[in-house]
Amino acid sequence: MDIQDLAQRLQNAERRALARAITLVESSRADHRALAAELLEILRGGERREALRIGLSGTPGVGKSTFIESFGKFLTGQGKRVAVLAVDPSSTRSGGSILGDKTRMELLSRDPMAFIRPSPSQAHLGGVARRSRESVALCEAAGYDVVIVETVGVGQSETMVEGMTDLFILLLAPGGGDELQGVKRGIMEMADIILVNKADGDLKPAAMRTVADYAGALRLLRKRAQDPADFPKVLPVSALAEEGIARAWEEMRSLADWRVANGHQASRRGAQARAWFEDEVRQALLARLTEDPHLRDLMRESAEQVAAGHLSPVGAAGTILAHL
Amino acid sequence: MDIQDLAQRLQNAERRALARAITLVESSRADHRALAAELLEILRGGERREALRIGLSGTPGVGKSTFIESFGKFLTGQGKRVAVLAVDPSSTRSGGSILGDKTRMELLSRDPMAFIRPSPSQAHLGGVARRSRESVALCEAAGYDVVIVETVGVGQSETMVEGMTDLFILLLAPGGGDELQGVKRGIMEMADIILVNKADGDLKPAAMRTVADYAGALRLLRKRAQDPADFPKVLPVSALAEEGIARAWEEMRSLADWRVANGHQASRRGAQARAWFEDEVRQALLARLTEDPHLRDLMRESAEQVAAGHLSPVGAAGTILAHL
Repeated sequence: MDIQDLAQRLQNAERRALARAITLVESSRADHRALAAELLEILRGGERREALRIGLSGTPGVGKSTFIESFGKFLTGQGKRVAVLAVDPSSTRSGGSILGDKTRMELLSRDPMAFIRPSPSQAHLGGVARRSRESVALCEAAGYDVVIVETVGVGQSETMVEGMTDLFILLLAPGGGDELQGVKRGIMEMADIILVNKADGDLKPAAMRTVADYAGALRLLRKRAQDPADFPKVLPVSALAEEGIARAWEEMRSLADWRVANGHQASRRGAQARAWFEDEVRQALLARLTEDPHLRDLMRESAEQVAAGHLSPVGAAGTILAHL
Repeated sequence: MDIQDLAQRLQNAERRALARAITLVESSRADHRALAAELLEILRGGERREALRIGLSGTPGVGKSTFIESFGKFLTGQGKRVAVLAVDPSSTRSGGSILGDKTRMELLSRDPMAFIRPSPSQAHLGGVARRSRESVALCEAAGYDVVIVETVGVGQSETMVEGMTDLFILLLAPGGGDELQGVKRGIMEMADIILVNKADGDLKPAAMRTVADYAGALRLLRKRAQDPADFPKVLPVSALAEEGIARAWEEMRSLADWRVANGHQASRRGAQARAWFEDEVRQALLARLTEDPHLRDLMRESAEQVAAGHLSPVGAAGTILAHL
């Protein structure tokens, strides 16, 4: 694989090159990992490009795909290039998304200004975090203006997505409250902006009440000292009727600009890079246990001996560690 | 420290020796870790003793301490020696339990047949899992017949406790339902026996309704193939009035005996030992990153460089790993 060529084509915004690069960073093969690291280094040396990275969370049923389609088309209509990455470790059980994200966002996926990447099937959260952070970096290097990292709003993946984005947006449906919608309190507290979708037709009054309820609730949650006083905000949107989308974007942009101007975005990205580094060291260290065939055999044999009661867990572990 | 002597006194059921041994396994100091491993090896070589290990989960307010007091006194009254270990990683924020578990279980703590160990303040779940598994092994070696591992019913600690016990008991309060009581569905699914506490006085009718509701709900959950058809069971108890305790114990004993007779307990313990071994290897490997002062400095300096944008996360991680 010619990594220099791949880097060049990616920087020239070739979508196929970006897709190929993401496939490379998603691979857990040692030779692919080395190529991926090389690619990321080359891209770091290139022109400095920075996207606005938006984490978007919402449980199934709130209309997340419709919102991304509507929001994405709005952005490309403004001349912005938009990448959508899906992060859903829970879908690993079914081996990735069933229908594929592209069929969920038909218009956007045909838009040359947009790039949509479905969830991969990945074994564990650590692996998903690693490939997602690298995929975000690839989208940035490819010159995308906005990178949306989408997640399902029910698991641990939100903390991970917050750790790789500049803004965190929570999409809710009208009525019911976050508990009934299965949204955890911790996720509520992460949100910079809550969008109450389906504010159209019969559901509009319920949506407006939900907006008012959450605006009240958010005032009770601890404020983040570094944000303007009127954030986090709650806004109604209708992905279907394409209403409130411009306003939502304006608020996202305004908060992001404020954070950039006050140095908060830079310090957040610095802290994120530090956490990425530390996680990378830990993951790579643990990967040594499974990469080396000799060690893998030794681990397996020791595990059998331990399970059969012939060796103690701690004693057998000590033997393995003496080998390393 | 004379480890042979400590082992001897522990096997002679000296409570002070057991307390001291647990303090040793709780320590994260490298020399203490080595002594702890030595102690565990000596004890493994001794007389084979096996306790019934019971995981007990319940959110604050269900009367868990009163239940353990009542249940523990019942067991010691039957001539059994009982150890109670508390596992509560969430209490780490306040630096361990505030009042101390012994004041919560006043009668049991004065019983010479019982041993109660309060939660330690521990930094992370991995550390808590390690010391808890080792503490359970120490209690077994000290000849306790029943080891109760208590947890708070709201976090990840339940999976950990299930991974080191033979039976998992969930304590609920009457009415409200598990969601209102903050019990996660995953925890419901782990339970071998659900006890609805406070089945006394005014609350008795509500407790009996709760028993019936959960009996119905459990029939809808997937059954474990290896258990008798009438498990998981739901039973009423009153820790305060000391009612239903004997019945609860009878059911626990009957399920445990059934599993022993069918080889399920042995295979479960084998799988648990295997998981312990694998976790031990991973934790010890990661501990190397912080134990070596030179490496720790290198990690810190690299992290600063990464945060400042002078190094890439993946590149800096590669440099660290080349050092190892």
